[in-house]
Amino acid sequence: MNQDMKIFEKSESEVRSYVRSFPTIFTKTKGYKMWDKAGNEYIDFFSGAGALNYGHNNDHMKQKLIDYITNDGITHSLDMASAAKAEFLEKFQEIILKPRDLDYKIMFPGPTGTNTVESALKLARKVTGRTDVISFTNGFHGMTIGSLSVTGNAMKRKGAGIPLQNVVTMPYDNYVDDQSSVDYLERFLEDSGSGVDIPAAIILETVQGEGGINAASFEWIKKIENVCKRWGILLIVDDVQAGVGRTGTFFSFEPADIKPDIVCMSKSISGYGLPFAITLIRPEIDQFAPGEHNGTFRGNNHAFVTATAALDYWTDDKLENSVKQKSQTIMTFLHKMVENYPELQGEVRGRGFMVGIASDVDGLANKIAAKAFENGLIMETSGPNDEVFKLFPPLTIDDEGLTKGLAIIEQSIKDVIKQPVTN
Amino acid sequence: MNQDMKIFEKSESEVRSYVRSFPTIFTKTKGYKMWDKAGNEYIDFFSGAGALNYGHNNDHMKQKLIDYITNDGITHSLDMASAAKAEFLEKFQEIILKPRDLDYKIMFPGPTGTNTVESALKLARKVTGRTDVISFTNGFHGMTIGSLSVTGNAMKRKGAGIPLQNVVTMPYDNYVDDQSSVDYLERFLEDSGSGVDIPAAIILETVQGEGGINAASFEWIKKIENVCKRWGILLIVDDVQAGVGRTGTFFSFEPADIKPDIVCMSKSISGYGLPFAITLIRPEIDQFAPGEHNGTFRGNNHAFVTATAALDYWTDDKLENSVKQKSQTIMTFLHKMVENYPELQGEVRGRGFMVGIASDVDGLANKIAAKAFENGLIMETSGPNDEVFKLFPPLTIDDEGLTKGLAIIEQSIKDVIKQPVTN
Amino acid sequence: MNQDMKIFEKSESEVRSYVRSFPTIFTKTKGYKMWDKAGNEYIDFFSGAGALNYGHNNDHMKQKLIDYITNDGITHSLDMASAAKAEFLEKFQEIILKPRDLDYKIMFPGPTGTNTVESALKLARKVTGRTDVISFTNGFHGMTIGSLSVTGNAMKRKGAGIPLQNVVTMPYDNYVDDQSSVDYLERFLEDSGSGVDIPAAIILETVQGEGGINAASFEWIKKIENVCKRWGILLIVDDVQAGVGRTGTFFSFEPADIKPDIVCMSKSISGYGLPFAITLIRPEIDQFAPGEHNGTFRGNNHAFVTATAALDYWTDDKLENSVKQKSQTIMTFLHKMVENYPELQGEVRGRGFMVGIASDVDGLANKIAAKAFENGLIMETSGPNDEVFKLFPPLTIDDEGLTKGLAIIEQSIKDVIKQPVTN
Amino acid sequence: MNQDMKIFEKSESEVRSYVRSFPTIFTKTKGYKMWDKAGNEYIDFFSGAGALNYGHNNDHMKQKLIDYITNDGITHSLDMASAAKAEFLEKFQEIILKPRDLDYKIMFPGPTGTNTVESALKLARKVTGRTDVISFTNGFHGMTIGSLSVTGNAMKRKGAGIPLQNVVTMPYDNYVDDQSSVDYLERFLEDSGSGVDIPAAIILETVQGEGGINAASFEWIKKIENVCKRWGILLIVDDVQAGVGRTGTFFSFEPADIKPDIVCMSKSISGYGLPFAITLIRPEIDQFAPGEHNGTFRGNNHAFVTATAALDYWTDDKLENSVKQKSQTIMTFLHKMVENYPELQGEVRGRGFMVGIASDVDGLANKIAAKAFENGLIMETSGPNDEVFKLFPPLTIDDEGLTKGLAIIEQSIKDVIKQPVTN
Repeated sequence: MNQDMKIFEKSESEVRSYVRSFPTIFTKTKGYKMWDKAGNEYIDFFSGAGALNYGHNNDHMKQKLIDYITNDGITHSLDMASAAKAEFLEKFQEIILKPRDLDYKIMFPGPTGTNTVESALKLARKVTGRTDVISFTNGFHGMTIGSLSVTGNAMKRKGAGIPLQNVVTMPYDNYVDDQSSVDYLERFLEDSGSGVDIPAAIILETVQGEGGINAASFEWIKKIENVCKRWGILLIVDDVQAGVGRTGTFFSFEPADIKPDIVCMSKSISGYGLPFAITLIRPEIDQFAPGEHNGTFRGNNHAFVTATAALDYWTDDKLENSVKQKSQTIMTFLHKMVENYPELQGEVRGRGFMVGIASDVDGLANKIAAKAFENGLIMETSGPNDEVFKLFPPLTIDDEGLTKGLAIIEQSIKDVIKQPVTN
Repeated sequence: MNQDMKIFEKSESEVRSYVRSFPTIFTKTKGYKMWDKAGNEYIDFFSGAGALNYGHNNDHMKQKLIDYITNDGITHSLDMASAAKAEFLEKFQEIILKPRDLDYKIMFPGPTGTNTVESALKLARKVTGRTDVISFTNGFHGMTIGSLSVTGNAMKRKGAGIPLQNVVTMPYDNYVDDQSSVDYLERFLEDSGSGVDIPAAIILETVQGEGGINAASFEWIKKIENVCKRWGILLIVDDVQAGVGRTGTFFSFEPADIKPDIVCMSKSISGYGLPFAITLIRPEIDQFAPGEHNGTFRGNNHAFVTATAALDYWTDDKLENSVKQKSQTIMTFLHKMVENYPELQGEVRGRGFMVGIASDVDGLANKIAAKAFENGLIMETSGPNDEVFKLFPPLTIDDEGLTKGLAIIEQSIKDVIKQPVTN
Repeated sequence: MNQDMKIFEKSESEVRSYVRSFPTIFTKTKGYKMWDKAGNEYIDFFSGAGALNYGHNNDHMKQKLIDYITNDGITHSLDMASAAKAEFLEKFQEIILKPRDLDYKIMFPGPTGTNTVESALKLARKVTGRTDVISFTNGFHGMTIGSLSVTGNAMKRKGAGIPLQNVVTMPYDNYVDDQSSVDYLERFLEDSGSGVDIPAAIILETVQGEGGINAASFEWIKKIENVCKRWGILLIVDDVQAGVGRTGTFFSFEPADIKPDIVCMSKSISGYGLPFAITLIRPEIDQFAPGEHNGTFRGNNHAFVTATAALDYWTDDKLENSVKQKSQTIMTFLHKMVENYPELQGEVRGRGFMVGIASDVDGLANKIAAKAFENGLIMETSGPNDEVFKLFPPLTIDDEGLTKGLAIIEQSIKDVIKQPVTN
Repeated sequence: MNQDMKIFEKSESEVRSYVRSFPTIFTKTKGYKMWDKAGNEYIDFFSGAGALNYGHNNDHMKQKLIDYITNDGITHSLDMASAAKAEFLEKFQEIILKPRDLDYKIMFPGPTGTNTVESALKLARKVTGRTDVISFTNGFHGMTIGSLSVTGNAMKRKGAGIPLQNVVTMPYDNYVDDQSSVDYLERFLEDSGSGVDIPAAIILETVQGEGGINAASFEWIKKIENVCKRWGILLIVDDVQAGVGRTGTFFSFEPADIKPDIVCMSKSISGYGLPFAITLIRPEIDQFAPGEHNGTFRGNNHAFVTATAALDYWTDDKLENSVKQKSQTIMTFLHKMVENYPELQGEVRGRGFMVGIASDVDGLANKIAAKAFENGLIMETSGPNDEVFKLFPPLTIDDEGLTKGLAIIEQSIKDVIKQPVTN
């Protein structure tokens, strides 16, 4: 091991994870590029697991942030009023919500994904007076006990050390071959002998990132919304990973033509990779008492500043169009890979810039990701058995970067496949 | 209402809280001072509820942060290795742990207080294979379901919308007059018919901030550690609010001469008010599997940079000595207030810079805090009925600031008391 | 209301139920006949909800019981050894278990159905160290919290006043048209991201009585046993209602050719309607510590005496053959009813002497049962909406009684149908 | 081992318990006497753990029962109306409730102690809409999950295999030396930051039988009732073991001058040792819907018959007076034992016929009980460590029987003490 890395082994908890896949010390980053201490350059097809949709250290946001810090703008404000927060609220309404005909109150629930999910679950239970929440197979919503209870992954669940309660898991779209998961769900709800009570809420990701890049059909998503309306169930969309343009539109649910009751956002909402989260709440159910959910870092003004700057990307459709176009390039590439390398036993998954190849060969996705790292590209795997390698380039990547990145992936596939696959 | 503040009423969730106590828009801050949009200056005796122990926008950290951003240092790194993180790990070992003869692995559990508490609870349960945790009356540990379950406040608990489980609440030090809470706890543990199982962990704050500035005696804390050792229970100290010098030493538990199995830190650990948290874990119980607890913002490098810079305050005992000395000034002042203003029906509480006056007069503490805001000082109330006004000046405040702040408090007491108290 | 019945209204709790459907005071019973205080005679097609499979006051058992009482045989023995208990143990092994090649330890868990189910659930969790149990839609297992948590009926579940936990409900055989519930179950088990952990046990009824006379196919039952074996899950058959010959064989699961790990029996096991229950446990998992599950009425010796006498019915195949033959008569009759009275919108359900007609017409089954009572026959309804009227004649009924009973049912259908159905 | 006893080892579950303490086969019983197969006679100071307060096979009840069976009275009636039940309801009102100025609706919850407790807990939660119940240290309420959750014994609790929830355990009277458990309870209730919510109910035994013969003072019981009234908490008295005269009055709570909201009765309520239980409910809270709690053996008419006959003991004060007088004899004896045999390190506990000696010498109580069995007397031990030997003679025992029994106990103490105590 590199001498410099000893400090992590010595001092950091065994729970550390990505450092084991990417064993080098990163120092500098820009756009889609990362450099390590030794000066090696990497193309980033990981994007902070969806937290860096605009790439690293975006210059527009960077300048705003430096100016703010230089001028001693208030940094930490809890949920007091600050000028930076006011500007974010105004711009988010104007640029994001109004044009999409969405009417939400904005809650700042603490600056992480699991915080916004917890606030959503608590609110839904409080408003409805019901205790159960329906989640879906392979959903991923966070690691604190409330969010973990709606997360499917068995290894993560075991970390709780207690049985996880008040949740019913239903099959996601296309979960069982030739079976309609909506029919199942409806049957359970309509039958008063089913053992499944009408829940407070249904929580879903339109594309499951951690769960294996499973993209639900728009038809399925719309049907779920209908089920919610029919039974008076609140619909929570967890757009923490799929939101902020990752699938091609600001909210991932736009093309499904639905209006969730609650939307959870984090990761790329700050634009610059700073901790930040918001919970969007239909005004009628905005019923927390003052301070009933709180947290020290609700007022991270650096994030307000960069998040506001990031909204400039959404004043026109340039970014959306670029993502749409480049997404086609990527999809074409992925289908070619599956076709040209049958050894992959691969299946293309996802939409927008949230895509990957699932391989039926045990351990193969991990091998390809590891080889890609050697070849200078960073990407991760997902799915219950890490069976998917996952392409998450920044939305702002240029053609050169994209081409180069895809070439490294093809090379890595080749490298891995020509060597006999052993565990 | 101020025209500028309408955006908060219109767009922000009803859950917003501090903005109702301090209804103005803050723009700029420095040290112990804050300014609003209208140019009013305030003395800050609130310190971001303990997140700004070094004051606002500390110049030493500010410069390091601007340099880092300017040079495109990696901002968001999940739990990959970064140079900024390596430096923090090294310095924290060297400046904080080693001199105190403490041996801990450091976990980055997500950048908030509730995240470090959740990681601690999960780890304790996993390691021991037990499900219950003992918490104390008026403990406050966070708003996500795991942390909320060990939090005492009934209003906050109701926000969960589900029964909170796997927790037993025991009386904090001095909870019932003339009764030893340790005797109770021990009786429950030693009696196999008590209905209270040996828990995975006991979690405590050495001084309860939100719970009403209740400072446990060092003797009590030491006894709790002994109970833990006798029964094989892990001891978790939640030092989120009381840590990082707030009580006069880096860790609040130092003068009690204990070595907790797990320590939760957040709030002021980043120094600059940036979201950051760490969980300190005795190496023998560092047993999470890689990735068993994760989170997007574990690698907030801006916070690594400022947290490292903040450690410079602890290379010698200057800060500690200054806090000790000023704390005496404050305590003398508080006792004088209680004596001179019997209408307060007041009791002085706390230690270090984590102090306040509890008033037996219903609503009085809130009135004094509100009046102080009018008079140009920011402080909050705490306790189950907001019966305590709470002095949390920055540790770095100078004599002038302190004197001025205390004067405003006395003036506010006078102002409130001379007017007949009505609800 | 009858003057005599006032005492029930005045003194008995509102929870009373059957007395509302059959509003008369019963005094005397024999075989398939019941008489009320006014001297009216009723044919009993209810059989104490399956607790009186041998009819009322069976003479063989009656004599043994009177002799035992007369001779001052020990009545109440907790779980001490008594001669009556020894005889039951010996005969049950010899007459029931050995000929069926079944090897079980016998537990006396307290004398009710819910007690045996609770003992089974506790044991399964203890033995496996897992907390979840899989139950099925419309399962009914009892009213104490453990059993209620695996019961599907929403009205009953609400009676708990707390969320019911540690249970996952899966679809019973034929729950959703054209979708295999076994495929569904397996998908959840095999996928480590499904959110459904490998459970301690699967609990099922081979025919669901309270749930609406749903008879699972033998193929489905066998498949569930295979699933259990594949995943190391304990299989619990709740044979409280379907056992003791109700479906034509002593155990309801015999024709499915399975060997459950645990079998729950109660209702007709005492033969005479006396409170009694047993839990059959595969010897390898007979792992409760002495006294770890107890109860005051585990040693109801009157029940031992009658239960032992009842076993005499199973020394040859006379009773089985008679039930088989009469069951065909009943099924033919039921199919004729559905055909001849299309207004029923009826569906024949069940097997053996555990049968009924489900009607799609809201409230119709209840009307027919009420009319039958007027006409001198007692039967009940079941299903989540009481949509099934349920034929539960004693296994020992003679041809005359059966013919008479069926005639009353047909008459009652006619009576109800000719009157316009209104709610 | 006796040849006859092999069947138990071979066929009965390992959970069997009393048979291990009293390893012989019982055949015949009468009054306070029991005989085994070998013809040995035993004096019964155990009384079926309180289920045989009137002794074995009481002639008055026996005759009524034989007559009823002979005349084919309805045996099993679920919760239909039967003449035997009507008579019980009328007599219970007339003989028990009215003279004590008590107004209760009577629920038949299934024929065991745990069933009545479960019905009480469910009802209290349903009526109040709250989920928590407060129970006391060393309480014992039953083995099904709801009742087990309010039971203190750690070994029994472990049998659940799941965390037991929705319960808070408070200290029973005199739990910690010199500390008032009522003050402690009240402090938790009045403090909204205590982490203990206002519960649905408080459940208590006035004398804890299984918990170690702990008799609460009447003053403490009255204070608990006051606490309940002050906070709108339902008071449930579990009189399963202490009721039906065991402590000298029909209800154990009579001398404390309280009126519980719900009373749980079982064990001796049938008089003859037959399974039976009732739940007494203050009319205002009699709010279960019809059938919301049910069970197959709610209508055990044999028990109605003997229970009605047993009420004849309560038409005058003869039995009460006799118990009072003999209780003094017993108490005098016990105090003499403690005094005369200091090796016991004994403490006299209990009241009425619910008494015993707690010994500080590990294992001594068990040795004395075992020796008493050898000497021809049956008694059991209780307490979390079986540290109490427990005298439960029938209420109807005559002077000769009592004298003889006490003599055997003294002899057994002598026998054990003279031999060196080893484990």
